[in-house]
Amino acid sequence: MTPISRRAALGAAAALPVAATIMPAGIALAQTQPAAPAAPAAPAGQQAPGFYRMKMGDAVVTRILDGGFQRPIEGFVRNADKQQVSEALRDAFLPPETVPIPITFMAVQSGGRTVMLDTGTGGKAGPTAAFGAANLAAAGIDPATVDTVVISHFHADHIGGLTSQDGRAVYAKAEILVPEAEWAFWMDDGAMSRAPEAMKGAFQTARNTFAPYRDRVRPYRPDTDVAAGIRSIAAPGHTPGHSAFAIAGGDRQLMVLSDTTNHPALFVRNPGWHAVFDMDAGQAEESRRRLLDRAAAERAPVVGYHFPFPGIGHIRQRERGYEFEPAQWSAQL
Amino acid sequence: MTPISRRAALGAAAALPVAATIMPAGIALAQTQPAAPAAPAAPAGQQAPGFYRMKMGDAVVTRILDGGFQRPIEGFVRNADKQQVSEALRDAFLPPETVPIPITFMAVQSGGRTVMLDTGTGGKAGPTAAFGAANLAAAGIDPATVDTVVISHFHADHIGGLTSQDGRAVYAKAEILVPEAEWAFWMDDGAMSRAPEAMKGAFQTARNTFAPYRDRVRPYRPDTDVAAGIRSIAAPGHTPGHSAFAIAGGDRQLMVLSDTTNHPALFVRNPGWHAVFDMDAGQAEESRRRLLDRAAAERAPVVGYHFPFPGIGHIRQRERGYEFEPAQWSAQL
Repeated sequence: MTPISRRAALGAAAALPVAATIMPAGIALAQTQPAAPAAPAAPAGQQAPGFYRMKMGDAVVTRILDGGFQRPIEGFVRNADKQQVSEALRDAFLPPETVPIPITFMAVQSGGRTVMLDTGTGGKAGPTAAFGAANLAAAGIDPATVDTVVISHFHADHIGGLTSQDGRAVYAKAEILVPEAEWAFWMDDGAMSRAPEAMKGAFQTARNTFAPYRDRVRPYRPDTDVAAGIRSIAAPGHTPGHSAFAIAGGDRQLMVLSDTTNHPALFVRNPGWHAVFDMDAGQAEESRRRLLDRAAAERAPVVGYHFPFPGIGHIRQRERGYEFEPAQWSAQL
Repeated sequence: MTPISRRAALGAAAALPVAATIMPAGIALAQTQPAAPAAPAAPAGQQAPGFYRMKMGDAVVTRILDGGFQRPIEGFVRNADKQQVSEALRDAFLPPETVPIPITFMAVQSGGRTVMLDTGTGGKAGPTAAFGAANLAAAGIDPATVDTVVISHFHADHIGGLTSQDGRAVYAKAEILVPEAEWAFWMDDGAMSRAPEAMKGAFQTARNTFAPYRDRVRPYRPDTDVAAGIRSIAAPGHTPGHSAFAIAGGDRQLMVLSDTTNHPALFVRNPGWHAVFDMDAGQAEESRRRLLDRAAAERAPVVGYHFPFPGIGHIRQRERGYEFEPAQWSAQL
């Protein structure tokens, strides 16, 4: 390779604005907000902060990445064989022998109030899913100032963030809203005593987690308003009181699927598949089909707790099953 | 709603580790890297920094979001009517009357060296595509320390970042590698004089942009190694010397499509569609089909300059055309 002739490179006259020369005339600029100031630099070995915002009318929704797990496929789908699961993963360009299970919780901020929807693992489930607190901080949200935490169900990767490693309340002043049927089940001593031995720990974890919140825990029912602009949607089956949500914002509604489906490459594509985590698989499938049908028909944006970050997108009906189409990332709010 | 009974909430015994109770036994943790320290907080009105990293063997690839444009669909696809384009956008859950054109350039860092692939608009094409410098800084990359800038072609949204608003070199010490055929075309006074009036500005912009780099500009040929682990791939048509790249990393290859296709919802789904930006539409289509065929056959990861951020994913062949499947975001490097 030889240097290009200086004559050519210097053959430049007065500078023309770039936009006028290459960009076609009539280009519409989306917004006129100036570039954000440079954020402090991340070292080359560090991943970008895992949060992402979108506007819903006057509300700002912030998705917070907690990290995730790699789950071996053996036994993960109750009614599909290993080969079928492996093929579904391969079709999604994922490793064929392990299901990557991302975890993303969220905040909804409007009118000076901050509402959390679920809380992540709280760093209690290993180092690959322990980014929630750092990403929440990166997003500028201090748990101590959060007004309300709405819990979808009592699995530990959703309620774990309510307490510190030593069991204290992380959300210092928030009211904690829990599905009525969920509370009734996990706090029922009879249900606990009848549960298989392997499940008793989950009962105990739920009890430990809510203990420091004492009189700040309030039950909510399906299909009611749980906070300004946030309505619960009945979605039982994954657990007895498992809840989805609809967030109203401007002329749109965002459907929060919670764990109605686990990874979309498996359970949105195959809504009849039963994840090992679903307590009542038939009821979970009914909830899943009902919400996916609704999301596809309404063409409304959805988020899923175990969808790849930021986990915002739409549901498209296909001949067999559905598919999740991630939404386009926006550089601006 | 009434407070839940204190008895139930306080019925907690010794805390059990969360992972042991809910997470199925045998869960495989992907990595053991501890959570990153909290990044400084972003105000609620500010979007997350637009960068994303992935490892390719010993190399770290960093995608840098510059922002994007909204382009009215009128006249955007030369050989499809407005209705067809609108339907393709609608099928991707995008606004049916405007094409969102994101812009993402990238850095490849290995062995202590930093190589840029393209540079964004440099903030010269309006405020919606002026985030590149801030996001590069957020990623901890100082243009003054960059060793090499490899340019895919001379359109202003790729070379604009080479110079500041007042025309000085942004990459203070970098060698600038340019496609030989691209240089030959845009620096040819005859080609400039024969070009339609509307295109003369593009010639001038290219000349202005490279002027401050003088003896630091070097041409490269298609299908040659341009930097350690980075090989050019001939992909003419969009412009005379337009180049794609293959980045080697470990046992994988990342195919950098550059502008072989514009937005995937239009031109990956419909590789026979001709974007108004393609200078030789037939040759561009031949390059597009060749690279998409190869990407689908190899199942190798690809990135596209105008793919939704972070723009990393895979190409799946469909009965008619192809589709782009975004890769799953990783919380860790």
